[in-house]
Amino acid sequence: MDPIRIDDPRDPRVAAYLDIRERDLAGRQGRFVAEGKVVLDLLLSSRRFSAESILILENRLGGLEDMLRKAQADLPVYVVAGAVMDAIAGFHMHRGILAIGRKETPHPAASLLDALPAQALVVVLVGIANHDNMGSIFRNAAAFGADAVLMDTTCCDPLYRKAIRVSVGAALKIPFASFADTAEFTADLDRRGYDQFALSPRGRIDIRDAPRRERLALYLGTEGEGLPESLLSRLQTVRITMSKGFDSLNVAAASAIALHHFSR
Amino acid sequence: MDPIRIDDPRDPRVAAYLDIRERDLAGRQGRFVAEGKVVLDLLLSSRRFSAESILILENRLGGLEDMLRKAQADLPVYVVAGAVMDAIAGFHMHRGILAIGRKETPHPAASLLDALPAQALVVVLVGIANHDNMGSIFRNAAAFGADAVLMDTTCCDPLYRKAIRVSVGAALKIPFASFADTAEFTADLDRRGYDQFALSPRGRIDIRDAPRRERLALYLGTEGEGLPESLLSRLQTVRITMSKGFDSLNVAAASAIALHHFSR
Repeated sequence: MDPIRIDDPRDPRVAAYLDIRERDLAGRQGRFVAEGKVVLDLLLSSRRFSAESILILENRLGGLEDMLRKAQADLPVYVVAGAVMDAIAGFHMHRGILAIGRKETPHPAASLLDALPAQALVVVLVGIANHDNMGSIFRNAAAFGADAVLMDTTCCDPLYRKAIRVSVGAALKIPFASFADTAEFTADLDRRGYDQFALSPRGRIDIRDAPRRERLALYLGTEGEGLPESLLSRLQTVRITMSKGFDSLNVAAASAIALHHFSR
Repeated sequence: MDPIRIDDPRDPRVAAYLDIRERDLAGRQGRFVAEGKVVLDLLLSSRRFSAESILILENRLGGLEDMLRKAQADLPVYVVAGAVMDAIAGFHMHRGILAIGRKETPHPAASLLDALPAQALVVVLVGIANHDNMGSIFRNAAAFGADAVLMDTTCCDPLYRKAIRVSVGAALKIPFASFADTAEFTADLDRRGYDQFALSPRGRIDIRDAPRRERLALYLGTEGEGLPESLLSRLQTVRITMSKGFDSLNVAAASAIALHHFSR
């Protein structure tokens, strides 16, 4: 593909990139923003997502030619000077590599579970509303080979720009889906033979003693409230033992410890 | 103490709180900013740091009376309306609890090590320049009972406002000190009988197999570069085994896994 030079920040061909910070909050009709070389590489290699266009700082183009060969031949690649990039994005974009991706149609959680192998590790998120934590949990899930992330409807969008960036692209790599009814979802995992562990500071078993079976679901809740009592009373509960006097751990840090324990 | 009402954001008594975001970058002559109830509580209980003043939103005062009784009797407590708080701080302060603390005189690393017990776990940081990572590492160090954090001079300040906040106050709890010469510092830990482990993706031993001895130092480096070769060749190296195809872990997440492993 031949890069297309853009000099006017109001050029309609780059309208999808305008004011990307504000538009994150308003949603983007089935699209998402990928930033940086690593994330762009994952997007171009993805079978679930496709790129609609790429916007690159002129001085970054040289290092990307190999990667861009992976893209479909008709993918528009727009090239801009630094001042034009900043005027489009609405703030100073020091990374200089952006792409617009198209979301896939959401799957029901059950059909994602249907597609998993006999040995599977899934992460179940309840009420994770912070994009930093969401991105970090995806990054940890990818680092320790989790097969899927399932989340309730109060979780934030893993394809929010910042969540993708913090995940270093893992949000584009690990399949995810939402479920509407937690009790039904938990019952479905039971029927499918999953061992279900809920991580909680008051968990009954120390994580060091938690067995890793063939099919395992790890539930993580919000930092403040934790997982709801209705889940804690129904699932096996595991704790990460901490120091007396400072028993406070960020949910992403907790996910790293638990996923490392359960990975093989 | 009787709270002192302030109505003028330019009142010289609250000058230390002016434009706190910008002033972070410029340094604050031996002072730091503590935000939020948990951090204020740690500051008021600290034997290493003292508070110079407190600035509270008027509607938050009610819940803090018990805590404020811990403070020295002559500590000024300024109370303001929301608009005055925002005008002083220079942005919207939704937390509504701020304090100015005074830093202690920096100790040499050796005198901090002198003060540690026979069984000790210390964290050694090289080149950690990101305040989020710094704060998270302190939080994890506190959660898993580390006795001290030692850092080279290229690390950022753990008493930067954001680092304290992300640490949930652990930066005020765990003693820390800097060392100028890494080779000398490492030799000093050797003489003191520390087992020294450097965490690295290319580490020789899997962290699961790393023994926990009486005195242990855990070295963490920056995410991009990692620890310098001169350290990796001199210390025992440990790795956190990750999934093939996505072997990327944030340094704070890595610290959580390693400190959890080495804690008892």
